[in-house]
Amino acid sequence: MPHGEYCASRIRGLSVRDIRFPTSLQSDGSDAIHPDPDYSCAYVVLFTDTNFKGHGLAFTIGRGTELVVAAVKSLSHLVVGKKLDDIYDDFAATWRSLTSESQLRWVGPEKGVIHLAVAALVNALWDLWARVQHKPLWKLLVDMEPEELVSTIDFRYIEDVLSREEAITMLEEMKPGKEGREERMIKRGYPAYTTSAGWLGYSQEKIEGLLKENLSRGWRHFKIKVGQDLEDDKRRCKIVRDIIGQDNTMMVDANQKWGVDEAVAWMKELAPYKPLWIEEPTSPDDVLGHATIAKALEPLGIGVASGEMCQNRVMFKQMFQAGALRYCQIDACRTGGVNEVLAIYLMAKKFKVPVCPHAGGVGLCEMVQHLQMWDYISVSGTTKERIIEYVDHLSQHFKTPIKVHNCHYLAPKVPGYSVEMWERSLQAYEYPYGSEWNKMFAEGTFKDPRATPPPWVEHRQDGDITHR
Amino acid sequence: MPHGEYCASRIRGLSVRDIRFPTSLQSDGSDAIHPDPDYSCAYVVLFTDTNFKGHGLAFTIGRGTELVVAAVKSLSHLVVGKKLDDIYDDFAATWRSLTSESQLRWVGPEKGVIHLAVAALVNALWDLWARVQHKPLWKLLVDMEPEELVSTIDFRYIEDVLSREEAITMLEEMKPGKEGREERMIKRGYPAYTTSAGWLGYSQEKIEGLLKENLSRGWRHFKIKVGQDLEDDKRRCKIVRDIIGQDNTMMVDANQKWGVDEAVAWMKELAPYKPLWIEEPTSPDDVLGHATIAKALEPLGIGVASGEMCQNRVMFKQMFQAGALRYCQIDACRTGGVNEVLAIYLMAKKFKVPVCPHAGGVGLCEMVQHLQMWDYISVSGTTKERIIEYVDHLSQHFKTPIKVHNCHYLAPKVPGYSVEMWERSLQAYEYPYGSEWNKMFAEGTFKDPRATPPPWVEHRQDGDITHR
Repeated sequence: MPHGEYCASRIRGLSVRDIRFPTSLQSDGSDAIHPDPDYSCAYVVLFTDTNFKGHGLAFTIGRGTELVVAAVKSLSHLVVGKKLDDIYDDFAATWRSLTSESQLRWVGPEKGVIHLAVAALVNALWDLWARVQHKPLWKLLVDMEPEELVSTIDFRYIEDVLSREEAITMLEEMKPGKEGREERMIKRGYPAYTTSAGWLGYSQEKIEGLLKENLSRGWRHFKIKVGQDLEDDKRRCKIVRDIIGQDNTMMVDANQKWGVDEAVAWMKELAPYKPLWIEEPTSPDDVLGHATIAKALEPLGIGVASGEMCQNRVMFKQMFQAGALRYCQIDACRTGGVNEVLAIYLMAKKFKVPVCPHAGGVGLCEMVQHLQMWDYISVSGTTKERIIEYVDHLSQHFKTPIKVHNCHYLAPKVPGYSVEMWERSLQAYEYPYGSEWNKMFAEGTFKDPRATPPPWVEHRQDGDITHR
Repeated sequence: MPHGEYCASRIRGLSVRDIRFPTSLQSDGSDAIHPDPDYSCAYVVLFTDTNFKGHGLAFTIGRGTELVVAAVKSLSHLVVGKKLDDIYDDFAATWRSLTSESQLRWVGPEKGVIHLAVAALVNALWDLWARVQHKPLWKLLVDMEPEELVSTIDFRYIEDVLSREEAITMLEEMKPGKEGREERMIKRGYPAYTTSAGWLGYSQEKIEGLLKENLSRGWRHFKIKVGQDLEDDKRRCKIVRDIIGQDNTMMVDANQKWGVDEAVAWMKELAPYKPLWIEEPTSPDDVLGHATIAKALEPLGIGVASGEMCQNRVMFKQMFQAGALRYCQIDACRTGGVNEVLAIYLMAKKFKVPVCPHAGGVGLCEMVQHLQMWDYISVSGTTKERIIEYVDHLSQHFKTPIKVHNCHYLAPKVPGYSVEMWERSLQAYEYPYGSEWNKMFAEGTFKDPRATPPPWVEHRQDGDITHR
């Protein structure tokens, strides 16, 4: 593939910043396991020796962002100094160099902190590539020849269910009708559902108000959080069902609160309210547990949905093999960025599992719309049983925020992956240096971490340690 | 349980240091996936307001240690300031407070960097507890009443295969004969096998020499690394089998090199050399893949062994449920320290899978001996099909190193978990400040990371960014 006029340029450097929004103040995003998230991200900018930059992020929820930032720094030597040609000519090899660095992989491999850092870096590489090509990411993906697209994927550990050749064939088979689907996508956009009304920390009044408002705006799918208290869940499910009626759809989300048996028992109690799916019923690591729950709930018409914490393609592979997922909720930055997400979409297609991406957070809506539109045009060819999560928080911080019209995501037109944030937002919310944080520290809304000595002592500086 | 005379004391502070040994210079520890490990650890010391300290570590292999160190700092506020009584009176709750911190869990949960940091902290808490009780850790565990021991375990996500009550009953049932087993353990020690001869980077001469030397010293089990080149593996397996004969045991270890089908095909080629087990044939995340390999190799008499990278009890649970492991290789600091390892031993017992701990590295031999001796005395009651890995590197840096006599680990007598290192070793090998590192930097053996500017730019300090 021609890399455009700037093919000879190099990554000259990168910056990575710890950006946190104080969402815990309004209980935005609160659920049974995460009562107080401060929606955050490790925000990466790649600088080249031309005017092009690449922007990427990994979503986090406050504390711990500093670790992803540190991991990006630890990985940065694998990207900085590289020629763009060398990166994109064998993107699968580039990806593997990041996920399989011979020493760093020990603290993963391909999971948790280090994989979130890979996601931020890799997403920035894709943003850069799309910008160089003057295309929004979805269009870059759609226009790639099957062989080229598949060449970005590392098939290690998934070849037993999906070979490179099979993936290419899948994409070849979907070529007919692509243009028509692209036109339809540009015209209508991609259907969405809303989680804005469903956070656990919200009052009954707030929930009712938001539901009615959303109904009147045309929303037909509503997701609420469950898992903290069964009686309260019943009460809230009833409110939702009463307000939205029988013809609209309710989904529930337990955010990993339950053990396997508990999940089945609890959901039997909520079955009368007819949820379409139960999301994250148990540990994201428990493939067999998800399969057990799926089997038990199928007769009740409740599907199992999961994926936002599913750590990599190897776990998704098993989820598919075990029949554990009725809905696959890929995340744009939990697994290792676009390359790995493409592999998961292709496996989902093979196992006939519809993908309904996890979104919300910081920048997730902005990213997953590209992936899901590519899925419609090039992979699944349908929006049947597929829908993108929509949460309307924090999009004001993005230069090209999502546009949702008539409950559909409209196809992005601007080159890139849509995750570039305003410099004024970055300067306000960089933790703990940003102007907004300093204001909140001064007001006492949050404690300034720099105001007291840390709980650890720096051994080497002291000779004999100073105790506190 | 009485916590001893110092029950009212508090954790006053902690230090955590990045300790790295330049083992890559001799190819010690080299395998098909990790060609150049520098055996390292994040080393934690807990300080109390009495004379007692707690020492713990998480083993790493060089780069990436800085991330585990950072994660220990991020978690330290959950430990520092706490009373020992409050920690140990409900150790399962303390453990959960570390693994489920409402924001930090997002960058895990319970896996990778953050879980390695939990392991280092939790291991230090157990070392401290054992010291306060004036007992080596194995003896502390052995002397605990079943109910008390089980109270340290967080059963979340494993209750579907093992309940608290079942765990207590298991331990109660093993009470008869405990004293005799303890006596035998003190007298004979625990059987070991050696990996010292088997690293991929070693020359044929070095392998042959080490094998002969080890045979003459009484060793009967030998493990070698495979997976890089089939013909070379055959050649090396033949050398080993020729030297050790048919009556001794050979194990092979692929360190995750293969896909599922490849693992089966490769091991069929090595079957004539009669390896007892194939260790880590594929991704540590692939439960179903391990099960497929196990089923295919069973008729050939080759068992599947894995565990050193198995991230937590939820993954081990599934490995057992799926019949994926013939041998369970627990690691002392990959999962969240002693509390979680106890849960894994109890599940292994239930599923009748023998535990053969992963050791070597830094301090792993020192730690796992305690766990395995507890298993013999209180859980399995047997050493049949069980054996501890033994690698004789780096033990000189520990104050109370393992003692191996007649190819058996001798029961530690000194209070604690045996992981305290000499201050002179810490000062020599702290990275990058230690005296040995400074010497190697000066000699040009390694590059001083401080000698060149880092690949990233600090955005906020510069206003406009300085490119390199």
